[in-house]
Amino acid sequence: MTDETIDELIDATYAALCKHGYADLTMQDIADESTKSKAALHYHYDTKQDLLLAFLAALYEDFTARLRDPEGDDPAERLVTFVDRALTPPARDDQRAFQTAILAIKAQVPYDDAFAERIGEFDAFVHDRCRSIIAEGIEQGVFRDVDPDRVATFLVTLFNGAHVRWVTEGQSADVTQELFVEYVRSQLLADDASEPAAERAP
Amino acid sequence: MTDETIDELIDATYAALCKHGYADLTMQDIADESTKSKAALHYHYDTKQDLLLAFLAALYEDFTARLRDPEGDDPAERLVTFVDRALTPPARDDQRAFQTAILAIKAQVPYDDAFAERIGEFDAFVHDRCRSIIAEGIEQGVFRDVDPDRVATFLVTLFNGAHVRWVTEGQSADVTQELFVEYVRSQLLADDASEPAAERAP
Repeated sequence: MTDETIDELIDATYAALCKHGYADLTMQDIADESTKSKAALHYHYDTKQDLLLAFLAALYEDFTARLRDPEGDDPAERLVTFVDRALTPPARDDQRAFQTAILAIKAQVPYDDAFAERIGEFDAFVHDRCRSIIAEGIEQGVFRDVDPDRVATFLVTLFNGAHVRWVTEGQSADVTQELFVEYVRSQLLADDASEPAAERAP
Repeated sequence: MTDETIDELIDATYAALCKHGYADLTMQDIADESTKSKAALHYHYDTKQDLLLAFLAALYEDFTARLRDPEGDDPAERLVTFVDRALTPPARDDQRAFQTAILAIKAQVPYDDAFAERIGEFDAFVHDRCRSIIAEGIEQGVFRDVDPDRVATFLVTLFNGAHVRWVTEGQSADVTQELFVEYVRSQLLADDASEPAAERAP
């Protein structure tokens, strides 16, 4: 399969998930969003689940590429930038419909080890990046001597909550972002550190 | 319909949701968990959705009864108790399976106004209770002069996040609870207030 074909099927899966949701999705729905036949899809992916797993893998690549290197030398600034980006998915049509389909996939996790593994990777990535930025901040004396692992767990929980509220209320994550910045300031910054860089900016 | 019948159908719905999940649930599955026939169920509830809405209403009654009056005079202690209880659902069999079914219902919210209203009630209750405890704490000088509405929004997001992680990782909310207590201490308590009561306890 060429990269072009893979990209097309990934895009078709995105569009079909937005249109039909997870529960009602069929291989025919995905084929209808592409130039391929349903038989061609089955040639490449035995089952709908195989295609969805490939889709989640592509999504993970995008997600991590977008979040891998937050700018800035100051760990507080980097943590704020990281959270901002993680809470602001790329602007695309039907973003709420898409996030809803992903939430429905999360509700499959207890019944499906392969989905569990893929979904777990997103949380693990956010956890690891947050933990390492926090550890760096502690080392530099910018952050208080918190447990980076536990604070990262807290942040992953917050991300998951922002995801649900986006689906159930169609709310953007603005308030979560603002309160997170306050959290960094009051909870993480060492007493003698100044305001987070994001707030110092002119 | 007698209260006893209602209670029986609510219990049967709980058991059927745990066993079959939301997506595959049928009226027959619910009837199978009760002493009633599928026809009897349809006599009381036109559709599966009507029965599920009645179920969510009963769940809401239990939830709010359990959380309405956290003990303690100290607002910090009451807030911590409230969050503890909200994060610790009553011990029942198949709790994870049940929370999974509720998450699947949350993923229906954008497509279903009646579910949206029912699910929104839970978040609104948590929001309102947190907001009023925080406002009381500010008035008493125990909490800093934060915006009770925004902090309550933050807490509702956290609850939703704990729900998802419980489903996707089978994790209890212990770390969230601990970090929430730290959050109350560092973020909410006025500078001249002492530690939250939960931490002062012998």
